[in-house]
Amino acid sequence: MLSDIEISRQTKSSPISEIANKLGIEPSELSLFGDTKAKIRLSVLDRLQGNLEGKLVIVTAVTPTPFGEGKTVTSIGLTQGLNAIGKRATACIRQPSMGPVFGIKGGAAGGGYAQVVPMEELNLHLTGDIHAVSSAHNLATAAIDACLFHESRLSREEYIAQSGSEPLNIDPKQILWRRVVDHNERSLRNISVGIGGNNGPVHDSGFDITAASELMAILALSRDLQDMRRRIGRLILALDTQGKPITAEDVGVAGAMTVIMRDAIEPTLMQTLTGDPCLIHAGPFANIAHGNSSIIADRIALKLSDFVVTEAGFGSDMGFEKFCNIKVRESGRAPDAAVVVVTLKALKANSGQESAKDINDQDMPRLQSGFANLKWHIDNVSQYGVPVVVAINRFPTDTQEELQWLKGAVAETSAFGCEISDAFCEGASGAEALARAVVSATEQASEFKFLYPLDVSLEAKLMTIAEAGYGAKGIALTPEARQQLNQIKAMGLDGLGICVAKTPLSICHDPKVKGIPTDFELPITQFKINAGAGFITALVGKVMTMPGLSVRPGYRNIDINQQDEIVGLA
Amino acid sequence: MLSDIEISRQTKSSPISEIANKLGIEPSELSLFGDTKAKIRLSVLDRLQGNLEGKLVIVTAVTPTPFGEGKTVTSIGLTQGLNAIGKRATACIRQPSMGPVFGIKGGAAGGGYAQVVPMEELNLHLTGDIHAVSSAHNLATAAIDACLFHESRLSREEYIAQSGSEPLNIDPKQILWRRVVDHNERSLRNISVGIGGNNGPVHDSGFDITAASELMAILALSRDLQDMRRRIGRLILALDTQGKPITAEDVGVAGAMTVIMRDAIEPTLMQTLTGDPCLIHAGPFANIAHGNSSIIADRIALKLSDFVVTEAGFGSDMGFEKFCNIKVRESGRAPDAAVVVVTLKALKANSGQESAKDINDQDMPRLQSGFANLKWHIDNVSQYGVPVVVAINRFPTDTQEELQWLKGAVAETSAFGCEISDAFCEGASGAEALARAVVSATEQASEFKFLYPLDVSLEAKLMTIAEAGYGAKGIALTPEARQQLNQIKAMGLDGLGICVAKTPLSICHDPKVKGIPTDFELPITQFKINAGAGFITALVGKVMTMPGLSVRPGYRNIDINQQDEIVGLA
Repeated sequence: MLSDIEISRQTKSSPISEIANKLGIEPSELSLFGDTKAKIRLSVLDRLQGNLEGKLVIVTAVTPTPFGEGKTVTSIGLTQGLNAIGKRATACIRQPSMGPVFGIKGGAAGGGYAQVVPMEELNLHLTGDIHAVSSAHNLATAAIDACLFHESRLSREEYIAQSGSEPLNIDPKQILWRRVVDHNERSLRNISVGIGGNNGPVHDSGFDITAASELMAILALSRDLQDMRRRIGRLILALDTQGKPITAEDVGVAGAMTVIMRDAIEPTLMQTLTGDPCLIHAGPFANIAHGNSSIIADRIALKLSDFVVTEAGFGSDMGFEKFCNIKVRESGRAPDAAVVVVTLKALKANSGQESAKDINDQDMPRLQSGFANLKWHIDNVSQYGVPVVVAINRFPTDTQEELQWLKGAVAETSAFGCEISDAFCEGASGAEALARAVVSATEQASEFKFLYPLDVSLEAKLMTIAEAGYGAKGIALTPEARQQLNQIKAMGLDGLGICVAKTPLSICHDPKVKGIPTDFELPITQFKINAGAGFITALVGKVMTMPGLSVRPGYRNIDINQQDEIVGLA
Repeated sequence: MLSDIEISRQTKSSPISEIANKLGIEPSELSLFGDTKAKIRLSVLDRLQGNLEGKLVIVTAVTPTPFGEGKTVTSIGLTQGLNAIGKRATACIRQPSMGPVFGIKGGAAGGGYAQVVPMEELNLHLTGDIHAVSSAHNLATAAIDACLFHESRLSREEYIAQSGSEPLNIDPKQILWRRVVDHNERSLRNISVGIGGNNGPVHDSGFDITAASELMAILALSRDLQDMRRRIGRLILALDTQGKPITAEDVGVAGAMTVIMRDAIEPTLMQTLTGDPCLIHAGPFANIAHGNSSIIADRIALKLSDFVVTEAGFGSDMGFEKFCNIKVRESGRAPDAAVVVVTLKALKANSGQESAKDINDQDMPRLQSGFANLKWHIDNVSQYGVPVVVAINRFPTDTQEELQWLKGAVAETSAFGCEISDAFCEGASGAEALARAVVSATEQASEFKFLYPLDVSLEAKLMTIAEAGYGAKGIALTPEARQQLNQIKAMGLDGLGICVAKTPLSICHDPKVKGIPTDFELPITQFKINAGAGFITALVGKVMTMPGLSVRPGYRNIDINQQDEIVGLA
């Protein structure tokens, strides 16, 4: 079989203006970025106000493993399959971060014959949204550090006279806003800044990868530009010497940050290998943030399609939970069906069992043991009142006996259906059966339920996520977390939602615990206020917000050849 | 009179595809970025290989003052004026840095009725080239720091086994490659990185503004993508423990950096207020780098226009000198005429005289004293064999007596002509007289001369710039600079050109010395190897490579209004 980039390049795709036209977007609503990408102006939403909305399908998965479950392949393949059976379907996915592209993970355009094309455009700058988020984020840091600098060198009277405003009295030990860069940059995790005469005061800082910026979550959750402006104004950048929050509005930088992100609020239209529309917009991480693409992209796609397929990060305990309890609450739009992606390899790995056999070989005991993880995710999704279709993402090494057993086992669960997806090798035709099952699932009567109401305490909300969302016995707060919780309540933010930042590699907090963890308390080590995004992040242990480059990093393979083409992008 | 952004917004401009068509670019050679911007594919150069080239006009100025001389206004106005008198003229200018846009300087789109439109597109992300430079630059830093990290934790044998390559033996005290961000970020000038367990080793680093990146100079000097790839491979990132240079090629990151900058190599087409083509490409600083827009943009524009107007940063001792001795040497294309921009205010300020009168008031003694600075710049340009036209950028407060005297004084110099430019208030018609004078100047027989040959020692080249370029008696090297010079010679780089990094605010090294400095030695404090760009930078005292935000920064005025329009961008 050809490599992803070879398939991407050998496929003759249509000019993006034709894709837009087919989707029902008018030329005046489109900003072309070359022939393969276009931004969609938000004015389209005014024009389409009266349109009925299509069905919303969310793609989630079992607990992730190092083998990759193929969630994006399945999302893109399902979109291709739905179009193949005569439904107008659009995919809505996140913009990949460039850091992992040059690190180890590679791109995020799907793969095989289920890809967004051209994959190198998706995986590199796209239309610049991540750069805009980085730039807006770092302007806020520059602003707060400049205030700190001028406040430290001037008396209150001088400061007022020269700046025309009151000093903010920033506490240099309480600067909450870090910096971001879209690279895997281990050595920037913790830094000391302001060194050298007249650059200070010296203080601690550090960089996260841009996908972990609160601004990325804001981009994904905003309904329009004015909403984004208000959210940016609410961002808490630091505390003053009295412990009071200093917002981006207080610093006077919220307007300029919004201006930097003005174009980023428009989703980018691309296409699948079979010419189906795909909206790429926002890329918040699913560990530290809510891990879902934008509300605006979903809204536009729903007005123009019979089916919208979107993807939530990691397993259903992570991105799907946050889709339901954070994104749906902001968008007002619940999903009509969910697809849980699984592979035989993932179940074997999730069994937690050691085996002498290669993971690609038939191994019924390990498969049967690992099935518990899939069942857990089916039940987890079902409790939201959303019909579940299991998609078995087939690999060439899968045996008929294994596949048959798995389909039979799923038939005993609460899942509405189960189909094998061959989208990677076969493209649209390999996903037609899955597409039919998804269509049927969305025709079921369903009633969406949030896991928790907003009008209970943060602690109660967190308890519900831990218990109903992960099967924990309860939660355990460190003294630091307890103190932060009190501080958050004192700020009047008790009514916000909760975003749990934990490992995606287990249903519980411990990545080593496979299968279905039982008899555990969820340990909360820290809270992080995301007043702009509109949630409080509860950190469970150490959560990585800045990846590092490995000793054999991906960038080494990437180059241009003598024909000026990109090579080595995976 | 309306503000710049009001004028920009009230002007009905043509779709950029029409501007491209008028210029002679085929649709297949264009990547649209919305309706107002487009990138031009380099394949246009192959198609136009046989075309004759137009005339190249370079716009420079007297020694800059805080009042602003209006060099971009004059460049854009002259382009408008040339088109108004029936010549096909294209402007080639640098992409403005976003840092100063949110800092104090404001944008760089020209002003009044001589602007590139839409000014907010030019001043913000444009088509993402600066972001691409930042990203490629910082990937190299991430790569070198990752190597350092893995080399420090692994034995040589482990490193080879895991990475598949030999360790580089990076000296952590000799990492020459810093980081960049496109913001005014004082607190990032000197930082300490790698802090905290398993992120290290801890070492010094710091950020420059992206315009100061060597990659920006490379972008401006490359002839095509393969040339850029070779230059990036030559970049020296660090020294090893034996003092030997470690290049981007050695680190294996040069290909990926080129891939990140693959689209950035295409110039961006915009238009003036009167619909004349304008190519925006690259933005190297004129203090630390060579301060001129790209060779590629000039090449394309020359093939398609009768006249190409381009601008060099700061006074003629800075950007113009580097245009001639660095850019022309790489492009092989000498200018046919130069415009020296002057204002009455600039001459008064350059007189160095104190006066009780307001700078806007008529003040013949101060004007006459300051004239020496203009005469110096005329003579400086003339020594390159390039005909000079003086453009007096008129302000409403200028008196007839002052203007008449100045025109008379210029007539006594070696300048070919002198005209008043009213482009700011009048647009194209205000620059027609200037345009006619420039056309005549380019019809003169002229013979371009470099200031120095490349095949003499770096010291001899530097001596010539100091003496013939600034009027110094000679140069004085600090012991550190002397040692670096020996090191550079030992690396076999003695044949490169010289880029002097000095203050633009005086012809000499001391910004306080106005008029024509005499009887001084040029003190060289440091050398910086720019092996990728292809020159050695000689630093004269401290040169700022990272601006700071003032106590009353520009970002405070910038916002979106209720109609989603940008306000406050100057």
